[in-house]
Amino acid sequence: MDWKSKITKVEPNHLVTKGYKQEDLIGNISFSHVVYLLLKDKLPSKEHGKMMDAILTACIDHGVTPPSAMASRIVASGGVPLPTAVAAGVLSIGDAHGGAIEKGAKFLQDGVLRAKKEGKSIEDMAKILVSEKREKKERILGYGHRVHSSDPRTKRLFSLANELNITKDHIKLSKEIEKELEAQLGKTLPINVDGAIAAIISDMDFDWRLGKGFFLIGRVAGLTAHVYEEEKDFKKMRKIFSAEVGYDGPYEKELP
Amino acid sequence: MDWKSKITKVEPNHLVTKGYKQEDLIGNISFSHVVYLLLKDKLPSKEHGKMMDAILTACIDHGVTPPSAMASRIVASGGVPLPTAVAAGVLSIGDAHGGAIEKGAKFLQDGVLRAKKEGKSIEDMAKILVSEKREKKERILGYGHRVHSSDPRTKRLFSLANELNITKDHIKLSKEIEKELEAQLGKTLPINVDGAIAAIISDMDFDWRLGKGFFLIGRVAGLTAHVYEEEKDFKKMRKIFSAEVGYDGPYEKELP
Amino acid sequence: MDWKSKITKVEPNHLVTKGYKQEDLIGNISFSHVVYLLLKDKLPSKEHGKMMDAILTACIDHGVTPPSAMASRIVASGGVPLPTAVAAGVLSIGDAHGGAIEKGAKFLQDGVLRAKKEGKSIEDMAKILVSEKREKKERILGYGHRVHSSDPRTKRLFSLANELNITKDHIKLSKEIEKELEAQLGKTLPINVDGAIAAIISDMDFDWRLGKGFFLIGRVAGLTAHVYEEEKDFKKMRKIFSAEVGYDGPYEKELP
Amino acid sequence: MDWKSKITKVEPNHLVTKGYKQEDLIGNISFSHVVYLLLKDKLPSKEHGKMMDAILTACIDHGVTPPSAMASRIVASGGVPLPTAVAAGVLSIGDAHGGAIEKGAKFLQDGVLRAKKEGKSIEDMAKILVSEKREKKERILGYGHRVHSSDPRTKRLFSLANELNITKDHIKLSKEIEKELEAQLGKTLPINVDGAIAAIISDMDFDWRLGKGFFLIGRVAGLTAHVYEEEKDFKKMRKIFSAEVGYDGPYEKELP
Repeated sequence: MDWKSKITKVEPNHLVTKGYKQEDLIGNISFSHVVYLLLKDKLPSKEHGKMMDAILTACIDHGVTPPSAMASRIVASGGVPLPTAVAAGVLSIGDAHGGAIEKGAKFLQDGVLRAKKEGKSIEDMAKILVSEKREKKERILGYGHRVHSSDPRTKRLFSLANELNITKDHIKLSKEIEKELEAQLGKTLPINVDGAIAAIISDMDFDWRLGKGFFLIGRVAGLTAHVYEEEKDFKKMRKIFSAEVGYDGPYEKELP
Repeated sequence: MDWKSKITKVEPNHLVTKGYKQEDLIGNISFSHVVYLLLKDKLPSKEHGKMMDAILTACIDHGVTPPSAMASRIVASGGVPLPTAVAAGVLSIGDAHGGAIEKGAKFLQDGVLRAKKEGKSIEDMAKILVSEKREKKERILGYGHRVHSSDPRTKRLFSLANELNITKDHIKLSKEIEKELEAQLGKTLPINVDGAIAAIISDMDFDWRLGKGFFLIGRVAGLTAHVYEEEKDFKKMRKIFSAEVGYDGPYEKELP
Repeated sequence: MDWKSKITKVEPNHLVTKGYKQEDLIGNISFSHVVYLLLKDKLPSKEHGKMMDAILTACIDHGVTPPSAMASRIVASGGVPLPTAVAAGVLSIGDAHGGAIEKGAKFLQDGVLRAKKEGKSIEDMAKILVSEKREKKERILGYGHRVHSSDPRTKRLFSLANELNITKDHIKLSKEIEKELEAQLGKTLPINVDGAIAAIISDMDFDWRLGKGFFLIGRVAGLTAHVYEEEKDFKKMRKIFSAEVGYDGPYEKELP
Repeated sequence: MDWKSKITKVEPNHLVTKGYKQEDLIGNISFSHVVYLLLKDKLPSKEHGKMMDAILTACIDHGVTPPSAMASRIVASGGVPLPTAVAAGVLSIGDAHGGAIEKGAKFLQDGVLRAKKEGKSIEDMAKILVSEKREKKERILGYGHRVHSSDPRTKRLFSLANELNITKDHIKLSKEIEKELEAQLGKTLPINVDGAIAAIISDMDFDWRLGKGFFLIGRVAGLTAHVYEEEKDFKKMRKIFSAEVGYDGPYEKELP
């Protein structure tokens, strides 16, 4: 054996993924729960399964405004296969787009661990973390949104987390930070949908390194719809997006 | 307005996707059904919803053997963010990998339309199509598999399609073609999982141009698991895959 | 040996590419001529070498207007590594963007072969091809441009091809088609830069399947400059491009 | 104006890149020098121009062994357009593949600045830097290679830098570090090609953030050759690379 993988056993006429035969999963387990199985090595409880569906659904689409949808539509307009255009959108998922789930989850997971280690309450830890970040003049990721002051996805996700008894220290810490930001800054900087997902997957005990994974698994559905719409309803190389861009480079001159 | 889209209405604190508020979809509709909504403009019936889960689950993973998983793991090993590596796998979904869903669905949809137009039975149409393809020495996509002689996913998907009363002319045509291939070739060339999905989404009345979309939406879950495993458990730039490659280019010589 | 490649022999402390030691190529052969070597299996003549430089330079950049530059800048703005953003631009190089080089070269190469086979002059072949395309109501790729009525790159490339004695049947056919389009359509549809490159690489005896390759090798230089400028001078997730997009999807409603 | 760019002015029949009309650049300035212009805002001196050619040529190809070539060939084998497959290879250029140019250049540029600030010689600074890295148990990037103990590209690049009077403090520091590593580790860890390029572009006064850019601009030529060869000479979905991969995931079981 060159190396080993924990994902799928492939033998002739026999496929086993994370312990279950694929023909057993197909038709018996919903897709989102199979995604959970792939990322967590076990099938979800009823509550975790429902939350998983909610998280992926909260990521599906935000119209043509985010970099991912813009990139996918522009690339589709060059006349390429659907997966190539969808992949271009996935490429834009980075530290500034969807990245607050990964970095936010790490921040919350570190914070909760530190509170335990230092024997501090979640409230006190929130104060410490906000103060430290302000001293370093760094942003806490997962707060504030370009469009929404009260994001309907965030409210719904947190209320579900309560209903399903998922809310624990990470969600608490994330809300205490929101309060503390308001107290220290004198203005509201509400948890955004990335921040909410960061807190919830942390209380579901997911590795923060999967943060961008949740986002992309949900978002490829929307990106596929965008690329399909672009291919079906629009002409290639049309003017999709526009910008008036001036030139302020070196002045025009002759070759030396 | 520069142009219009049918996917998501984005207003401050208000997100409507294909007619439904996102906060209504989140927690009430399972993710796979939301995917159906995105691709079909309406929520699925109970039967279509179940079939949708089954189709996406049938696409999740096939170990490290297909180009998509190989590309994702290799790119991950270069030391890049998770979405970059997942996207590399998506790029490999082309005419030869997952493409049989798209082309197979087009072939079946054209075949069923032609049978109706020419007043022929599905059985007769299968004979005609197989003969025509053999004359042109072209393969019919969606039959035969590198690893499986009796793919467990195919059997399960078709039996579900029967249970859920989804089986109609496209699935019938696809099975008649399988019989006819055996009769004309004298050997079994069983419908593979791509071929099965091509037939089923056609009987669910999906546009064949979405064929690769189903495959990629399901497969990104597996690719995410592969990239996560590669990042977590293995060293960068390790020897993941190997080949003994000789050089048979121009013979070695001095510059002119 | 699993298989053989004609590109590079890799042995410890010994690298031979298309017959030449890399340490001989480095510092002795200019980069564009090494590119020629990679694509043509031999070093260029003085004339071909100069033309190669001209072709790659003609592809370097067209500001932020084409899909490739737009995609690269948008993806860069998501906060990803430079190569990820450059690659996103490369993905947009498709049948509608840069694709006229590939398809145009095939069209010209087929046309010249057919003229020889049918014993026709290049002038007559141009008339036949334009008429056939008009009957089928298909566009001939490589004529007309969104921005330029007299593209400075095209004129310069053709005049160089004359100076360097590269002009042969393919360039002739391409110019005859331009005349014939004007005669039959009653308006000017000038050869664009893609069309010019298609004709020139055909007269240089390159395989048409490399058409998009020339374009991308030149354009990655411009895309790298765009991504670097975006990373250095601009904030992440800024509004780079804009569109007023309305929603005309299913009307807003409650869940069933 | 929404914003400004320093790269290309686009007006009807008029294209100016970094101050020069494109029709002046085409046919008069070699491609590699135009690349220099794009990245440095001015045309190179004769010496810098020659070094630029050498650097890009040193990056062209390393056979099918690196992640970029493997990814491109695998993705090509899925049956996708040439640019999609080339882009997949570009995606693998990350911190572990080509990344030593970027990080190595930053390390050397920081080191030279620090030597000046602290009034230390390059020799002393090399000792300090190696000791500090060893204390932190961190690798210095750009030393050692998987295949070559005496990389022919490195030797050639450094000897050219001497001939062309480019060698200054950064190259000196890089060689002093090599000596110091040998002294402190008791074994040779030679500067590899990435490390050499990192030092040379630093002495040419390039921004370290362009490190991966040099590598990718050179390497896309080789990747294009690989994808072309794969498309031309091989069957789709062939077994290009292989690995014996075992399954050590959750044991096989029935659904709960």
